[in-house]
Amino acid sequence: MRCDVVAIGTELLLGQIVDTNSSWIGEQLAAAGIDSLVQVKVGDNLGRMVSMLRDRLAEADAVVVCGGLGPTHDDLTREAIAEIMGVELEEDEEVAERILNMFSARGRRMPANNMRQALVPKGASVIAQTRGTAPGLICPVGNKVLYAVPGVPHEMQDMLTRAIIPDLLARSGSSSIIVSRVLRTWGESESGLNERLQDIIDELDGVGNPTLAFLASGWEGIKVRLTAKASTEDDARALIAQWEQKIREAVSDIIFGTDDQTMESVVLDLLEARGWTLGVAESVTGGLVSGRLTSVAGSSVVFRGGIVSYASAVKHDLLDVPVGPVVSHDAAESMARGVRTVLGSDVGLALTGVAGPTEQDGQPVGTLFVSVAMPDGSSHTHNLRLPGQRDQMRQLSVISALDVLRRALTA
Amino acid sequence: MRCDVVAIGTELLLGQIVDTNSSWIGEQLAAAGIDSLVQVKVGDNLGRMVSMLRDRLAEADAVVVCGGLGPTHDDLTREAIAEIMGVELEEDEEVAERILNMFSARGRRMPANNMRQALVPKGASVIAQTRGTAPGLICPVGNKVLYAVPGVPHEMQDMLTRAIIPDLLARSGSSSIIVSRVLRTWGESESGLNERLQDIIDELDGVGNPTLAFLASGWEGIKVRLTAKASTEDDARALIAQWEQKIREAVSDIIFGTDDQTMESVVLDLLEARGWTLGVAESVTGGLVSGRLTSVAGSSVVFRGGIVSYASAVKHDLLDVPVGPVVSHDAAESMARGVRTVLGSDVGLALTGVAGPTEQDGQPVGTLFVSVAMPDGSSHTHNLRLPGQRDQMRQLSVISALDVLRRALTA
Repeated sequence: MRCDVVAIGTELLLGQIVDTNSSWIGEQLAAAGIDSLVQVKVGDNLGRMVSMLRDRLAEADAVVVCGGLGPTHDDLTREAIAEIMGVELEEDEEVAERILNMFSARGRRMPANNMRQALVPKGASVIAQTRGTAPGLICPVGNKVLYAVPGVPHEMQDMLTRAIIPDLLARSGSSSIIVSRVLRTWGESESGLNERLQDIIDELDGVGNPTLAFLASGWEGIKVRLTAKASTEDDARALIAQWEQKIREAVSDIIFGTDDQTMESVVLDLLEARGWTLGVAESVTGGLVSGRLTSVAGSSVVFRGGIVSYASAVKHDLLDVPVGPVVSHDAAESMARGVRTVLGSDVGLALTGVAGPTEQDGQPVGTLFVSVAMPDGSSHTHNLRLPGQRDQMRQLSVISALDVLRRALTA
Repeated sequence: MRCDVVAIGTELLLGQIVDTNSSWIGEQLAAAGIDSLVQVKVGDNLGRMVSMLRDRLAEADAVVVCGGLGPTHDDLTREAIAEIMGVELEEDEEVAERILNMFSARGRRMPANNMRQALVPKGASVIAQTRGTAPGLICPVGNKVLYAVPGVPHEMQDMLTRAIIPDLLARSGSSSIIVSRVLRTWGESESGLNERLQDIIDELDGVGNPTLAFLASGWEGIKVRLTAKASTEDDARALIAQWEQKIREAVSDIIFGTDDQTMESVVLDLLEARGWTLGVAESVTGGLVSGRLTSVAGSSVVFRGGIVSYASAVKHDLLDVPVGPVVSHDAAESMARGVRTVLGSDVGLALTGVAGPTEQDGQPVGTLFVSVAMPDGSSHTHNLRLPGQRDQMRQLSVISALDVLRRALTA
């Protein structure tokens, strides 16, 4: 089964918006075992849209077209599909009523052109819109199929998951349910992870189901995704559970979470479970650790606050760091203890390091000291050496420090 | 003149990497007045690469192919181009020597497959590599042209700017120099900006040179880009200066910088020019303002530090904020004065607000109070209402607060 992708929008070609939709669709298709071999961006031009969609349909079994379903005269996807199907556009009463209701529910007058979004090529079926005003479309073309979805990412994602992937699987003759599970890791390179999981990978290659994929997410670590096919969801989940267990046994030291968990959500959950609050003292990361923790709604239960002790004098005066080199094991430990005291938190986390452009206190760019001060007065302090330029080094410092805290909490 | 773009790489189709290269190329081509009407992603498959490149060459005057120039057997762009040109690949001695020298200068043994990167289709010319090992290629195909560049963004960007855009302009018969200038704005919607600049836009439409484009950059504001063509760089710059002056007269209140300047770099420069240091007290943004300021290398000259006073007790105890509602005009003002005292800075910047998910102190989600405490003891405090969910509201708060500080410094 092959499904290509066409993203519509002149703004994509002009670089005003980066086309992240087709990447996301490609990832989902791959997880479902469907090939996506060509992905195209084309502007809001009827002739070129028709020509591109025809080319893709000639080669692939199915095509997802993304965007161009809005209410304005630039939104030409409906017209392009009608031309390819050789049919007229008709107003779909149910869709029309739904659009009218959305406006009247908000007490707003509906601009007339919104009714364009209720037009459906004759013979196509509708993927009901649950979030926006434009519905998706499933459009048979001979023995192939064109799917149209809005360009708004969360609307597109909803329709792809809910309607298009199941429809593609049904067409491919598969009655399988597909379930994925992501194990999130930090602290190992992709090649290192590959080496440590080689036996399991070989075994999986033999059985063919579930499949395993590595997804590198830069300074978020590497995701290990298991995808299983089975006739029921329970069977698929059981299959995944069995292999997840094997992977956990092989690399338990680097797995910090699953699926939608993030390093910050995991750390906050661990603290909350223990009834502990947190204070953060940062130098090299300049506030990014606190910023990341507070990106989680509800973090205020655990997170009391932070001190960005950028100038050395702030470290000495406010955090009681002894005079001396401020990029050092002792300075990090003093900062962690100091911030516990100053902010009255149960746990203190501190970072000091060198992001560049030049060395500091005789320490090279990339040096990071992380310290965790625990409620019982003990502390854990680590010295790391991180790669990269200023921005990358700082971002790696954030997740590395949170991982040090996570390990201290689970030690 | 039309130049399409083909990005090569199976990892792009699988969504493991987002194709940002073609967006960047599209933006540069548009600025040079060259149309880019179709952009394609295709995997590392020789047959499909050849077919896609032929399709693009049939429609466009030129094609940029990006990626697939590395040393491994998956890197097939050279072979695809040779097939399209109907020629053999030959080793280019100069390129080969350069690759050998790069390895020997680093004292590293060169893996043999690196010599693949010295292969050039007969009749093609080389764009010298200045940063990586793979050179770019300029490959005539009939009266059209194929350009090959590496997929590594900074190598691609260097070659596009240095060699490809000038070559495209020369081929289009234009001996023009193209110069762009970006004016960065904050605080006006795209439609509002459009309305305020309507007379200038109409006038520019009449003369045709320079051209004006709006580039929305989300929570970084809207960029106004002027692009002028002239026979010399001085003439192009003079033309831009004349229209920049008119735009500045129309919307001087919202222009905060030009070209590569950012809101944080502008604020740091203003403080440095006055010889003042800065301390930041943040609640709603949880460290992001400090994090953003310290992303600028050299910020330590100005930035002393920050207090992330997330829990109310931290505001009261550490910043001396009077007991009472902490999302308020008075709390923001106390925080700004308090952080000046605690961190010993000349200027204090404070933010308190509600990012959600629920209201606080009777203030709805989206409320932001920003206060600036000046060295003379005076203060500027503003109450803003920002749109969006948690993440968007927090990011808008960061740049809004820095803009309040900028205005206070230039008042």
